[in-house]
Amino acid sequence: MTDISKLGEFGLIDHLTKDIKPQNESTLYGIGDDCAVLHYPSSEVLVSTDMLMEGVHFDLTYIDLQHLGYKSAMVNISDIFAMNGTPKQITVSIALSKRFTVEDLEMFYSGVRAACEKWNVDIVGGDTTSSYTGLAISITCIGEAKKEDIVYRNGAKDTDLICVSGDLGAAYMGLQLLEREKVVYYQQVDEARKNNNQRMLDELRNFQPDFAGKEYLLQRQLQTEARGDIVKQLKEENIHPTAMIDISDGLSSELIHICKQSNCGCRVYEKNIPIDYQTAIMAEELTINVTTCALNGGEDYELLFTVPIGDHEKISNMQNVKIIGHITKPELGMQLVTRDNNEFELKAQGWNPIKD
Amino acid sequence: MTDISKLGEFGLIDHLTKDIKPQNESTLYGIGDDCAVLHYPSSEVLVSTDMLMEGVHFDLTYIDLQHLGYKSAMVNISDIFAMNGTPKQITVSIALSKRFTVEDLEMFYSGVRAACEKWNVDIVGGDTTSSYTGLAISITCIGEAKKEDIVYRNGAKDTDLICVSGDLGAAYMGLQLLEREKVVYYQQVDEARKNNNQRMLDELRNFQPDFAGKEYLLQRQLQTEARGDIVKQLKEENIHPTAMIDISDGLSSELIHICKQSNCGCRVYEKNIPIDYQTAIMAEELTINVTTCALNGGEDYELLFTVPIGDHEKISNMQNVKIIGHITKPELGMQLVTRDNNEFELKAQGWNPIKD
Repeated sequence: MTDISKLGEFGLIDHLTKDIKPQNESTLYGIGDDCAVLHYPSSEVLVSTDMLMEGVHFDLTYIDLQHLGYKSAMVNISDIFAMNGTPKQITVSIALSKRFTVEDLEMFYSGVRAACEKWNVDIVGGDTTSSYTGLAISITCIGEAKKEDIVYRNGAKDTDLICVSGDLGAAYMGLQLLEREKVVYYQQVDEARKNNNQRMLDELRNFQPDFAGKEYLLQRQLQTEARGDIVKQLKEENIHPTAMIDISDGLSSELIHICKQSNCGCRVYEKNIPIDYQTAIMAEELTINVTTCALNGGEDYELLFTVPIGDHEKISNMQNVKIIGHITKPELGMQLVTRDNNEFELKAQGWNPIKD
Repeated sequence: MTDISKLGEFGLIDHLTKDIKPQNESTLYGIGDDCAVLHYPSSEVLVSTDMLMEGVHFDLTYIDLQHLGYKSAMVNISDIFAMNGTPKQITVSIALSKRFTVEDLEMFYSGVRAACEKWNVDIVGGDTTSSYTGLAISITCIGEAKKEDIVYRNGAKDTDLICVSGDLGAAYMGLQLLEREKVVYYQQVDEARKNNNQRMLDELRNFQPDFAGKEYLLQRQLQTEARGDIVKQLKEENIHPTAMIDISDGLSSELIHICKQSNCGCRVYEKNIPIDYQTAIMAEELTINVTTCALNGGEDYELLFTVPIGDHEKISNMQNVKIIGHITKPELGMQLVTRDNNEFELKAQGWNPIKD
């Protein structure tokens, strides 16, 4: 393993970025100067940024650095898709303490690069520095869209259909699964220590968490994917959403953003919310209401969007998209209609990095 | 004082950004959606990003949050000027622990806003999140320049003049001054504790550090300014630098970047390096070689640039710019010519956030 201080800041940056070659026409100059230089003469420039802090947004006992790099890039790429745009460039800043090696950083970068290669995004800059404490990551993604194609959060109208891609709640259940296995592991370690059982302690070094039949949940938690395929399909079907957002903090929270910014209400039908079989099983095992997971579990990075009611047939033809309700007048509020036909007001109980 | 968790993430962002109104034509949409939307049909887009970590890049016992906000924004704005561009937008990400209040964040933002107002920069997005440990800041600045106006690091040519704005080493001396006064304070506290001297401990609550006659050094350390005025002067004088960089890590380090990327050597004359009177006095007090400060002390954020020798007269007419040497053929190396006519090879001993 190679100590990071051996290379120094510029040596490290050279090492990590030496074979990065910009692919996009809009990238005039990438890494290596005070700024990257980009060229967007005939479309608008979209910019999104996210910060990920160790212990708050990720736990390195669950996620390895390669998946973390992939996820950090994907969540920003997802924001560009949520505007109906195309991601083009990314800057990657990372601050890390001495416990990390050059090889660790290589893993992180290989994850970032895999995500970027998937969507033809150029890495054009960033910052690599040290931290006295945890790992901190900040990524900025830049993309493009024609002015008339951009979809904001504020365009939903009464009677519009509310649509969601993929399925919801699985990433949150994946996190619960990881946490459960961590607890099981530490319980066994504690017991072995209490009983001074060295043989058991030795065996626990090869502890295998039990993920059988729950691989999809893990994948959804650890290998985040941005739904560029949905944006592409919408273009192909000639559907222009009236509002769109990506689901990072849970369906409820994002739907409330759309309704507030569009000045409208909504009715969402519990029975229509797409939930994977593994999510439902896991929720039952943990005696959590699966709809609560889907409404408030974060990190799905699916797209939530509204379309005019006239697009009903086109939407029905789309793969991986479900209509979950419709937009109403603002005075009707934001309602969840349950399977037994009760109505509840939607509340944003999703993940909040700032709450107590 | 208001606890941050009271407002929650979105409440906090609303609170901090509610009266931010984009001023620039290139800002189509700022804060409030998945992305900012920018419009650059007739110039190139410049992007620069920096990460600042508590304990590594700043120490909150020296700098208050308002100055820290100002400095965080300015160092990014400085990168846009270093490309001969005009800064236009900024995104501000901050991760902070529970010891900070809403009022603290307001102070930080007021500093960021003061820096942005000075150079007509719009705050268009960012991220506000929590940290289990120290404060982390990540800023991305976006600017514009005509393609033909952009100045890279790699255009310096044999015989070009090497120029620097302002004076060097003062920001580093300001940091030494702050550290000296901190040591004095803790020595007195230790002594009072050892002697159980409660009266002295009470008096030390009103400890006044001794900064008399060194105000300029403090200002250079705490109130960083980006040299947009120099960029403007260069345009007015019709000077197009062949290479340019801002001095963040020390003159040596930046000059080596220019020489390596331009494949050339340089001769810099010690006697020509601009040093303020206060910097010289402080260096003497601390028995540090003042040229070493100017070469290796970071955070000056002055501009270092090269111009064709034919611009000699124009440069001589400029306020606040000094010619410190000239570019040579690469085989002549990168040399410092001392006052007593000795020659030393320039080495990058400037600030390195990654070294041991």
